[in-house]
Amino acid sequence: MAPPKVMHPDSINENVKRTSYAVRGELYLRASELQKEGKKIIFTNVGNPHALGQKPLTFPRQVMALCQAPFLMDDPNVSLLFAPDAISRAKHYLAMTSGGVGAYSDSRGLPGVRQEIAEFIYERDGYPSDPEHIFLTDGASKGVQQVLNALIRNEKDGVLVPIPQYPLYSASITLLGGTLVPYYLKEEVNWSLDTADLRSQIATARKNGITVRGLVFINPGNPTGQCLTEENLRQLIELCHRERIVLLADEVYQTNVYQDVRPFISAKKVLKGMGGPISKELELVSFHTVSKGFLGECGQRGGYLEMTNIHPQVVEELYKVASISLSPNVTGQIMLGLMVKPPKPGDHSYPRYAAESKAILESLRKRAHIMTDGFNACQNVECNFTEGAMYSFPQVKLPPGAIAAAKAAGKAPDVFYCLKLLEATGISTVPGSGFGQKEGTFHIRTTILPSEQEMPAMMASFKRFNDGFMAQYSKPASKL
Amino acid sequence: MAPPKVMHPDSINENVKRTSYAVRGELYLRASELQKEGKKIIFTNVGNPHALGQKPLTFPRQVMALCQAPFLMDDPNVSLLFAPDAISRAKHYLAMTSGGVGAYSDSRGLPGVRQEIAEFIYERDGYPSDPEHIFLTDGASKGVQQVLNALIRNEKDGVLVPIPQYPLYSASITLLGGTLVPYYLKEEVNWSLDTADLRSQIATARKNGITVRGLVFINPGNPTGQCLTEENLRQLIELCHRERIVLLADEVYQTNVYQDVRPFISAKKVLKGMGGPISKELELVSFHTVSKGFLGECGQRGGYLEMTNIHPQVVEELYKVASISLSPNVTGQIMLGLMVKPPKPGDHSYPRYAAESKAILESLRKRAHIMTDGFNACQNVECNFTEGAMYSFPQVKLPPGAIAAAKAAGKAPDVFYCLKLLEATGISTVPGSGFGQKEGTFHIRTTILPSEQEMPAMMASFKRFNDGFMAQYSKPASKL
Repeated sequence: MAPPKVMHPDSINENVKRTSYAVRGELYLRASELQKEGKKIIFTNVGNPHALGQKPLTFPRQVMALCQAPFLMDDPNVSLLFAPDAISRAKHYLAMTSGGVGAYSDSRGLPGVRQEIAEFIYERDGYPSDPEHIFLTDGASKGVQQVLNALIRNEKDGVLVPIPQYPLYSASITLLGGTLVPYYLKEEVNWSLDTADLRSQIATARKNGITVRGLVFINPGNPTGQCLTEENLRQLIELCHRERIVLLADEVYQTNVYQDVRPFISAKKVLKGMGGPISKELELVSFHTVSKGFLGECGQRGGYLEMTNIHPQVVEELYKVASISLSPNVTGQIMLGLMVKPPKPGDHSYPRYAAESKAILESLRKRAHIMTDGFNACQNVECNFTEGAMYSFPQVKLPPGAIAAAKAAGKAPDVFYCLKLLEATGISTVPGSGFGQKEGTFHIRTTILPSEQEMPAMMASFKRFNDGFMAQYSKPASKL
Repeated sequence: MAPPKVMHPDSINENVKRTSYAVRGELYLRASELQKEGKKIIFTNVGNPHALGQKPLTFPRQVMALCQAPFLMDDPNVSLLFAPDAISRAKHYLAMTSGGVGAYSDSRGLPGVRQEIAEFIYERDGYPSDPEHIFLTDGASKGVQQVLNALIRNEKDGVLVPIPQYPLYSASITLLGGTLVPYYLKEEVNWSLDTADLRSQIATARKNGITVRGLVFINPGNPTGQCLTEENLRQLIELCHRERIVLLADEVYQTNVYQDVRPFISAKKVLKGMGGPISKELELVSFHTVSKGFLGECGQRGGYLEMTNIHPQVVEELYKVASISLSPNVTGQIMLGLMVKPPKPGDHSYPRYAAESKAILESLRKRAHIMTDGFNACQNVECNFTEGAMYSFPQVKLPPGAIAAAKAAGKAPDVFYCLKLLEATGISTVPGSGFGQKEGTFHIRTTILPSEQEMPAMMASFKRFNDGFMAQYSKPASKL
């Protein structure tokens, strides 16, 4: 008989085993199987706009193509295929590299792009930003993990995470051996912040011997779609300062806002606007990406983090750790430059860029309405309006019969519901349990990314399934 | 007074603090400063070919440009700028994606590229490869870290690493909280494997309560440049099988071979050729990348790992962890496809591709000779021939006067030497202590990447500095 493996499921790193990541969990795997079998699947499990038909913007992609093939710019025919400002912009970025996109950059990213990001932040917030405190990363997720890795020392270190949350946080905290301290968003007030709950969770965690070191918030929210008020952000900042907690601001959806009452405001802007010692003391790390907004360039893996009031030696330590992987991918860095420095009025490519980006954002805004209205038209389903980001997170009130059937099938009730939905309609969602939900409530998460054309049919198909499901499982148990 | 930081240098993760990474350490930082001040620096600290003037190959970059800007293929003028097989290849890769290069791929990478890699491995080794056991990563470094993360459970888990080593290994093992168990290569026999030392290091580690779980080897060697014999690989495999150790094969330099006696042979091929139970039992993970070879596409961050005889549930666990970062960058994945499936004779782009790649490899071979000969012409310097990879690792015999001067300056002797070299010549190297070296010996690591034209002048400049340094510090101490 063969000896047992060294890397046996029972003998690998416990933290690896304990980590779970629902966005690509059981539902995604089943959906992938069904797709292989020929079933048409609508993947709404991940915010992956291009996979659902969103077209990339022309100008940034022209620049990216020229950066990959700079020799095209020596060809007299180049202007037949490329806009003049795309050519000059490609030269601009190539001049920042140490040998084109095939050369490693500094491990923090290209200094020139970090400078452009600092200018973008200054323009957005009205407060200066230091490029030395901006690191570029292979997508925002990697940046989050780099910071958590420095923050978390052992299982007694806790990080506050909103529930429902984006599972990047639960997965990374588990993998790094820390403790997730949940704080609950108020579903009944459109997933708003509940500072009373936040304070009580901190107190409970401390009673249990946890050192609360970090607080994550996501604004606009994932999976909950809410946009935080300036007042809420101020409360978070004051609380973190008072309780000596580092604030991690996940602001990757800052361009994805579908209401006009609460436009996006960055935590950095609120902090700096508060003035006084707090504005120079609170430790804040903010994250952004090319994957969301109207670019939706997920596959390019371009993200950045900005550190505010972080100890200079800690900045150095993060630089050292980033160095181990040498450099983030260089084209993703250039895409970041293109995101923060779009064509301006008067530029050759401006009209097209403006039209393309406006069309995407307007359509997302419409889809946010179609989707949440569609959910609210279903039996036993209630959904807050998707104010921002790319997701809806409706509550599904499952009848006792459904809960019993799920138990009999050995599944969590929301998993059971989502699997039935997938088999019946091809709509691939993620069960709320992957994001966290109050005990006894059940949710599903979908993206609002299926195309505007397809969405009415998709919502009708959802309604047919849901209402049938509710009818079936609302019958007395004896009749099932 | 401001309260102390939450993320204070004294209160962050100890493993982060303990990690060191010499390739971008003190010497690199000083070189960057000097460069800012206007000094001409020759960066030989990192194997970053394009930064030292190597041109990217035309065909892969044409394909990459079209993948970034697929709309070019709808333009009737496209054939003025792009080869017909570049167009068809771009369509081929785009068809593998779920929405172009802006969409996340599966977290293991595009199935189509993984299939092409499996075919490449089959052709290279003569043994089948399963695409389900191939994961694509943002450069090979990330793949190494993923596997080490599953392997290492706590500080009692040890990983054998050759000394001198590539500091990715020491840094990652420290960061993950494991223990590096060193085994020494025999410098006097061209950095060959010393199985007696290996066995004795395992015994010592076990006596100290360490569970030895992994063994890393690098073939061709970094920083040592040696090419392992088939016999050596067989010994490693037998030893790992007998001692129940997972073998990690860093084979990123497999195309960089500058002698004809020992062509590259993969660990997988040797293992499969051994037949019997061992070929089905030994746990092996092999790594490769687009960053080295004649592509040198470091900035694209494309790497893969192939798992052989790894427990299927462990493969699943690695998939789950990879999912947290969603997907490796997609263009890096396509570059991997281009690496393993180059144009064939008869293809439109073949002659150019063949000429470009041959020129690079032939020039690297010449540079390996110029550099090692150059070192051996210097006083107190001895250098093994760079049989493969991209580095030379000469031993520098420092006179007692130099060691005393280094001590007085508060520097390790090799750091002292490298700093003086940098200030005098602009040549940025890495001190041997960053890679590990036998107690009392001193080395420097350089890449062989400065251009063939520049290299004679660079080596002359090195010799002038070195011989002057040796003369200065060989004087009796009283005269210094």
